[in-house]
Amino acid sequence: MMADGIGWVKRAAGVWSGQIGSVERVTPLSIVDRGPSLEALSGMGEADNPFDGDSVRAWTTSGKTIVSLPLHEEERIYGFGLQFHLMNHRGRTKYLRVNSDPKEDTGESHAPVPFFVSSRGYGVLVNTARIATVHCGSTVRGDSQNAPYIRDRNTDADWLATPVSDLTEIVVSGDGVEILLFAGDTMMNVVRRYNLYCGGGTLPPRWGLGFWHRVPSGYTAEQVMEEAEQFRLRDFPCDVIGLEPGWHSSSYPVTYEWSKIRFPDPRRFMAEMSLRGFQINLWENPYVAPSADIYPKLAPLSGSYTVWGGVAPDYTVQEAREIYMEQHRDEHVDAGAAGYKLDECDGSELTGSSWMFPAHAEFPSGLDGEQMRQVYGLLFQQMTDELYRQRGRRTYGLVRASNAGSAPMPYVLYSDLYDHRQFVRALCNSGFSGLLWTPEVRETRSAEEFVRRMQVVCFSPLAMLNAWSSGVKPWTYPEVEPIIRKYLKLRMRLIPYLYTLFANYYFEGVPPIRSMQLAFGLSGERTVAAGDDDIAYKAMMAREMDDQFMVGDDMLVAPLFAGESGREVILPEGDWYDFETGELYEGGRVALITAGLDRIPVFMRCGAIVPLMPELPHVPAAGEAVPLTVRHYGNSEGRFELYDDDGQSFAYEAGGHRWRTLAANRLKDGSWQGSVRDSNVKMGAGMETEGFAYSEISWEFMHK
Amino acid sequence: MMADGIGWVKRAAGVWSGQIGSVERVTPLSIVDRGPSLEALSGMGEADNPFDGDSVRAWTTSGKTIVSLPLHEEERIYGFGLQFHLMNHRGRTKYLRVNSDPKEDTGESHAPVPFFVSSRGYGVLVNTARIATVHCGSTVRGDSQNAPYIRDRNTDADWLATPVSDLTEIVVSGDGVEILLFAGDTMMNVVRRYNLYCGGGTLPPRWGLGFWHRVPSGYTAEQVMEEAEQFRLRDFPCDVIGLEPGWHSSSYPVTYEWSKIRFPDPRRFMAEMSLRGFQINLWENPYVAPSADIYPKLAPLSGSYTVWGGVAPDYTVQEAREIYMEQHRDEHVDAGAAGYKLDECDGSELTGSSWMFPAHAEFPSGLDGEQMRQVYGLLFQQMTDELYRQRGRRTYGLVRASNAGSAPMPYVLYSDLYDHRQFVRALCNSGFSGLLWTPEVRETRSAEEFVRRMQVVCFSPLAMLNAWSSGVKPWTYPEVEPIIRKYLKLRMRLIPYLYTLFANYYFEGVPPIRSMQLAFGLSGERTVAAGDDDIAYKAMMAREMDDQFMVGDDMLVAPLFAGESGREVILPEGDWYDFETGELYEGGRVALITAGLDRIPVFMRCGAIVPLMPELPHVPAAGEAVPLTVRHYGNSEGRFELYDDDGQSFAYEAGGHRWRTLAANRLKDGSWQGSVRDSNVKMGAGMETEGFAYSEISWEFMHK
Repeated sequence: MMADGIGWVKRAAGVWSGQIGSVERVTPLSIVDRGPSLEALSGMGEADNPFDGDSVRAWTTSGKTIVSLPLHEEERIYGFGLQFHLMNHRGRTKYLRVNSDPKEDTGESHAPVPFFVSSRGYGVLVNTARIATVHCGSTVRGDSQNAPYIRDRNTDADWLATPVSDLTEIVVSGDGVEILLFAGDTMMNVVRRYNLYCGGGTLPPRWGLGFWHRVPSGYTAEQVMEEAEQFRLRDFPCDVIGLEPGWHSSSYPVTYEWSKIRFPDPRRFMAEMSLRGFQINLWENPYVAPSADIYPKLAPLSGSYTVWGGVAPDYTVQEAREIYMEQHRDEHVDAGAAGYKLDECDGSELTGSSWMFPAHAEFPSGLDGEQMRQVYGLLFQQMTDELYRQRGRRTYGLVRASNAGSAPMPYVLYSDLYDHRQFVRALCNSGFSGLLWTPEVRETRSAEEFVRRMQVVCFSPLAMLNAWSSGVKPWTYPEVEPIIRKYLKLRMRLIPYLYTLFANYYFEGVPPIRSMQLAFGLSGERTVAAGDDDIAYKAMMAREMDDQFMVGDDMLVAPLFAGESGREVILPEGDWYDFETGELYEGGRVALITAGLDRIPVFMRCGAIVPLMPELPHVPAAGEAVPLTVRHYGNSEGRFELYDDDGQSFAYEAGGHRWRTLAANRLKDGSWQGSVRDSNVKMGAGMETEGFAYSEISWEFMHK
Repeated sequence: MMADGIGWVKRAAGVWSGQIGSVERVTPLSIVDRGPSLEALSGMGEADNPFDGDSVRAWTTSGKTIVSLPLHEEERIYGFGLQFHLMNHRGRTKYLRVNSDPKEDTGESHAPVPFFVSSRGYGVLVNTARIATVHCGSTVRGDSQNAPYIRDRNTDADWLATPVSDLTEIVVSGDGVEILLFAGDTMMNVVRRYNLYCGGGTLPPRWGLGFWHRVPSGYTAEQVMEEAEQFRLRDFPCDVIGLEPGWHSSSYPVTYEWSKIRFPDPRRFMAEMSLRGFQINLWENPYVAPSADIYPKLAPLSGSYTVWGGVAPDYTVQEAREIYMEQHRDEHVDAGAAGYKLDECDGSELTGSSWMFPAHAEFPSGLDGEQMRQVYGLLFQQMTDELYRQRGRRTYGLVRASNAGSAPMPYVLYSDLYDHRQFVRALCNSGFSGLLWTPEVRETRSAEEFVRRMQVVCFSPLAMLNAWSSGVKPWTYPEVEPIIRKYLKLRMRLIPYLYTLFANYYFEGVPPIRSMQLAFGLSGERTVAAGDDDIAYKAMMAREMDDQFMVGDDMLVAPLFAGESGREVILPEGDWYDFETGELYEGGRVALITAGLDRIPVFMRCGAIVPLMPELPHVPAAGEAVPLTVRHYGNSEGRFELYDDDGQSFAYEAGGHRWRTLAANRLKDGSWQGSVRDSNVKMGAGMETEGFAYSEISWEFMHK
């Protein structure tokens, strides 16, 4: 081993690049290519490089590049994208391959982002299109200066299968790689710098935050319209209908062309749906069928292996991009479709079926199959995003594979994995890596499970019932229909709050959904500086905290799972109030909460303000104003910066938006007063355009 | 892709080598280094190269070597070592990394042998110390001349997630690899050529086929002797007692030195145990503790990473081998130990704990961690085998990692994986790859499960109760004690039969335990030439046949699993007889068999002969003769070539053995007569040495 120190080059305030050896041309960041939000990064202030000097070292051996970083005894490691098994990866080896079956904790996942955040306040991105392996303190060098204390397993109960290591090691095949380093006094600020460096988080169209329903595969246009109409008749809000396999003339492999039998007039179908307040989302996959019109043009620009008989085009080649985009523009985007569900771009090898081009596939650009599989999902996100940008319409959709740099992409991840606890853990985890995730509801074994899953999905980035296979509908279980209706309506009411959180994702890089670790800086270090004799804090330290999460700064969601009538909830310091009733819960402890089926425990921080919309059947169109009800919780004064814009265009990027400060103040007589004024703390404040949604504002004070 | 044909070089009758690019120095075969059994290979006759011409092609891309073989539509692929999930790997991608947690069907396993056998009658060995990935018809090239028929999943029920591919692709990192090709008119003959090319199968000492018991970890010499004595008092046969962690002065990492507290006089302890008919087997692991006497000598000859604080020595370096072997010779082998259990040489990354030197570790010989992990188990097998060879004593033991070429190694694989069906499937699978496997019994949830597991293990290469953690003993469940006793005694009785099967493994490369596919050439091709309208054959074709297996040519074992009172058994053509009762079962069909807890369904082929020993408490010592009872089943005449030797030395390799022909003939009066004569069909027949076990022979005719 001939290790060298890394020469860091500053890229932005608090962001450095380290180039080792010769760096490959195509990387996740080169594909997303949004460029850093330099102004916002500057706004966060300068920071010292956490690895000054020669503490990070790199070398090559056996065709691999290795980067070694020091790791402190109490340090915890978070991130690596969409991870279903653990929060803290300390002691684990993560093999970050894109794979559709993350059944074991190998690191493989739909979106195994090679980015991690340390509890010591730094983040590392391996900007590579190759599979990175990260040893998070799972290796100990023989020449270590901090060799672990050796215990005899025979006699020592403290023996560890994975002894405490003093280094994180990153391994990538090839003779070079770029590492990006992000500073932060808190993990949140590390994540913010990462998101801002990637271009800031996505801001969905307002309708994207409404309720989504996917109809069964094989439905005709008529069947879709009938099922959509049921939402209106039965008083369930719904904004998006997703079409599943069957709308194409052929779909596995895919033509991207409408089925003339099931959808004889797609433009008219989508126009009619639009009139009824429904957006149409189109499912597709990457593998182009020989029967497709664009096949003869794409085949020569494709990889050397087929998938299901379809070609896998090389969309790093401009000509291939143009063919795909032109077809999609003409047939889908300009015909009225609102977005895509980009399926099957991850590949599978773990379960009984095996499908994907192999790692040794060759592509016209010179990329191999390993690289292409790692970035295939990103390529589709970027192309479709660009299509909608060209038309000045925001899109929001679903994707099954992603990688680094995807925060600005208007896509939410989903999975065939269906364990509810893992789905909630992924909600907690995804915020560390600039990812959005939906714990979509498919089929359930009971009405109870249906309710518990629907409650959770309504507090996620994309609230969806995906009935492609089960055909289940919100009213399938009559005994719980009122509860389901309550939560779909609550989702609708929450949109002003959620929309503002996404604005903060875009402007400030703050993820809308956050784990307890990320939100509260609960790094889980074993020695607790403050509140050491505090039970709640000790409990927090010992736990993964993978079953409760924050929606924004002030809303703590603690789901119940089927079979449960209560649970322990970790309530951080301060007073907390039940979202529905305003009942007070003392914080700084583990609270035992019971809840009937009609209730998911949601707690608001003392002083919290949450703006709520009316229970509309779908979100208002641009220019249509709706009244707001603003709730304030507890006996502390509070403030909330409310975001608003036209809800659909990109005008907000050039200042076409409005921030208003909602403030709750206690008057001298002890009564409470709410006020609204244009914000003087947010960028671009006061610039007004047409099409704002929130008009008349009334207040509710929850002071039980 | 610039693909070249392979220039095959004949290595033995029916065996060819193809060298692609520059081949690495250390390979599995270079480590085992036994050399081919050329005479036996010649005895099998010449054969044509199944891939004459340019049909196998190779190229390199992105630092990888790829070998591509044609694959026919109906071809099935077996092998890849110890596989727990599937028999036929067609359509799957196998990532053949040594890993202790084969929880998913990735190809990873304790012994992921890069050798496969095709139903078309050829075998391919990738002779590499690197991780090979084999795409078994899971990839389809765009330029394929046999592109699969494209189906639309929307409308076609025959759509396949993995379309039918026309190639097998082998991928190994680096710029070269050696492929060995084995011919065979049947899969069995392919496997035989593979085993013989590796040096022939192992022939254990006779005691190795007796019953094994492992005492709980931390036991003292006195506790061990007390527990062993219980076997004699309670009338349970037992030949081997295994010591688990605790016999070393320190064991995780390990010193290889005896604990002065628990084993103050190991030589005397082992001598006393020997007098009582017990062999001692010693557990160990590879990672040397700083407190070990040999540590200062081994540390400079070790890899750059530690495991549990111990060093991982580079045993491809002669000096390191000598240090290990000298210590083991003095402290264990010459002190009276009979063999080893070589644990933890596989590494773990899949479950909650992670431990192993990383793939990028560097070793003094120039090998990296990827290579060393792949062959670490082989190195320990080879060193310990050599130790015992030097002393002229056969050994037999357990190992948790293996690779190609291990057929001559006197080791049996085991696993922490504990699903009983997977354990039986591994019995079926292991015979394809020159591996031995024990479905050892640990703890069980019920007396019923205990019986079902103990029944199966008594028909395996190593019959063991491993109580290291549970402390369970054969008499733990009093309600089933007689049944357990019956099967431990049956194991003892079967030793002459089993010992002969192992002789055939050594001399002819025929594995003692065989899957139905291997034993009957049931290739599972979809078009069945003979017996097409035969229900049994059709059933066989459709099944994995992973829950029944053959012990030798004539004994079919169809285990029951806890909770079952009966099962379907596939009985190939011909008449079959219940092993215990002689009851007739018509073959060529699927038989529905019910069996009480005291019975595991075992069927003998018509004409089968099985030699049985008395129910001794342990196997006879060399020179001690025991009478044989020979059973003949059915109404066909039969013959069995019975093997015998001194049971413990290597004299058999130089002709010190005896083959006798046991023949059952029907006399003119319809009565049956058994005869015994020196064999004139076996190699080396008639050469006699002292110490044969089987003397007086009597006959039993099972003709119900």
